[in-house]
Amino acid sequence: MNLDEAMARAIAASARVRGTTSPNPPVGCVVLDAAGELVGEGATRPPGQAHAEVVALARAGERARGGTAVVTLEPCSHQGRTPPCTDALLRAGVARVVHAVADPNPKAAGGAQVLRAAGVVVESGLRAEEVALGPLRAWLHFARTGRPHVTWKYAATLDGRTAAEDGTSRWISSAESRAEVHGLRTAIDAIVVGTGTVLADNPRLTARGEGVTRQPLRVVVGESDLPPGSHVLDDEAETVHVRTHDPDEVLAELARRGAVDVLLEGGPTLAGAFVRAGRVDRVLAYVAPKLLGAGPPALRDAGVSTVTDAVELVVEQVGMCGPDVRVSATIAATTSEG
Amino acid sequence: MNLDEAMARAIAASARVRGTTSPNPPVGCVVLDAAGELVGEGATRPPGQAHAEVVALARAGERARGGTAVVTLEPCSHQGRTPPCTDALLRAGVARVVHAVADPNPKAAGGAQVLRAAGVVVESGLRAEEVALGPLRAWLHFARTGRPHVTWKYAATLDGRTAAEDGTSRWISSAESRAEVHGLRTAIDAIVVGTGTVLADNPRLTARGEGVTRQPLRVVVGESDLPPGSHVLDDEAETVHVRTHDPDEVLAELARRGAVDVLLEGGPTLAGAFVRAGRVDRVLAYVAPKLLGAGPPALRDAGVSTVTDAVELVVEQVGMCGPDVRVSATIAATTSEG
Repeated sequence: MNLDEAMARAIAASARVRGTTSPNPPVGCVVLDAAGELVGEGATRPPGQAHAEVVALARAGERARGGTAVVTLEPCSHQGRTPPCTDALLRAGVARVVHAVADPNPKAAGGAQVLRAAGVVVESGLRAEEVALGPLRAWLHFARTGRPHVTWKYAATLDGRTAAEDGTSRWISSAESRAEVHGLRTAIDAIVVGTGTVLADNPRLTARGEGVTRQPLRVVVGESDLPPGSHVLDDEAETVHVRTHDPDEVLAELARRGAVDVLLEGGPTLAGAFVRAGRVDRVLAYVAPKLLGAGPPALRDAGVSTVTDAVELVVEQVGMCGPDVRVSATIAATTSEG
Repeated sequence: MNLDEAMARAIAASARVRGTTSPNPPVGCVVLDAAGELVGEGATRPPGQAHAEVVALARAGERARGGTAVVTLEPCSHQGRTPPCTDALLRAGVARVVHAVADPNPKAAGGAQVLRAAGVVVESGLRAEEVALGPLRAWLHFARTGRPHVTWKYAATLDGRTAAEDGTSRWISSAESRAEVHGLRTAIDAIVVGTGTVLADNPRLTARGEGVTRQPLRVVVGESDLPPGSHVLDDEAETVHVRTHDPDEVLAELARRGAVDVLLEGGPTLAGAFVRAGRVDRVLAYVAPKLLGAGPPALRDAGVSTVTDAVELVVEQVGMCGPDVRVSATIAATTSEG
């Protein structure tokens, strides 16, 4: 197996554990023996348990000696809840480590240096963009900024309405789009809405359907009380009520709880607060091929009054999800940093 | 040259004359000699002048005898401003005619029958969908319904705003999208806006830029007078002011003037009137990767108050136009027919 194929496998392994590793990164690792044969594979286990390298090396056993570890993130060299991965790699006797992206976390970084000092050949950058924009995206953002990565997701009609004039919104988007969103919910750490959404729609905010193995933390933002009997107060998933409208306070609370990858599904006012604060990192829009001509918009009060001040995005991906158009875009420049 | 390649050439030839042939269809024709060699090619000339078959046969001359005419539309068999094409084909001695789509126009139809009766082999259906959804789309719609085909085109931000809160809208969409729209304007028959748009924006409504060879008819709809000095009153293109808000009256006036392919570029109220009347056949949205959070929507008063009554579309094509997302969709079912 060549290195590129090995990294593709490591990336796939990391993608499968998304949502289960925070605040640790979802990393994938493949171990090849000296002849280039696949002898071990692994991904990060839940917090406090083994990192990807340790899982893959345990499977490889003695066959790792003189071989190559292919890993999506630079191996850590620090003692956290588990010992440094560099120790495990040196003990296993690998001759080479190939990682996709370097660790931006000053506490954990330096793994490459430690390995090189011990005579291991270290190479960096293989499929780096794929990893940085894919499975490690949220964690890298968190490592760099200290804030969870926020994906604002909404569904609207082609003419930009999230509900009809009478408030009805079932179902704006297609069954295919709704299924995709449930898949997304099971792979992120927390899902955020405002109290207004809870009061108006009484949503369950759980991930449902095929392939759902875990539930994200449900986060309700705002000062209103939640009515007893609200679905978000049931036992299907944990819920936290954050009594503030300040996105930074919300994100700080989420960071404290170990959430790294956050899905913002709130109404237009909450979305506006996050956009205004520069705290939306990615926009994921499901655009249904329908026209309403009336009804609420996806976004309000984003702090923009003239067209030259529009929040600029860059489209990352556009495609179909069933009959709907899916647009994924990143914010070109956030309005504030901190 | 095989028949499929010949039809592709005929389609390309027809696309080049779009906008110059109405109320006649923009047809392309390729003539192959008995050995299958390309000996003539042509497209419909402006009204009153030669049809595509006649142009291609004139180029082929004697080499058409025993050959094949490949044409995007079933040859006409009626005497209009020019003699029937079936006569020209029979006179030229072609042995076979292959057309993409049949002529739905009862006056002109029957060409295949006339040719077959004279011993010509006639085949139909080659690349039919490509032609029916492409260069002949508007004309086929007109032939079937008696109404011009209406493409509602608009540019909006990802959150569905066509201007900012203060009314500024230059430029919501990118230079690439604007250039594409100018290309579209030069290929259609008429461009429709409301008096409100003229009063608010004083647009020129001309096609500008590279590749622009002709101007569409400018149509202003509504009862307000146009201020003297309005750009639409200049000499760059013809302008007609239709003093009504009824889409059917507008379309009847356009049909009388020989317009078959119409671009609706008006504001949300005019778009709403056309959508409500079931008189939008295609939606062409340029979605700019920007967020505004305030400002006017693309569509108002579409006659829908609850989500189950939404006007259903089918996405035909989604892609990028520079940094913008371009969505082309057709109306799944019009709300009224007539």
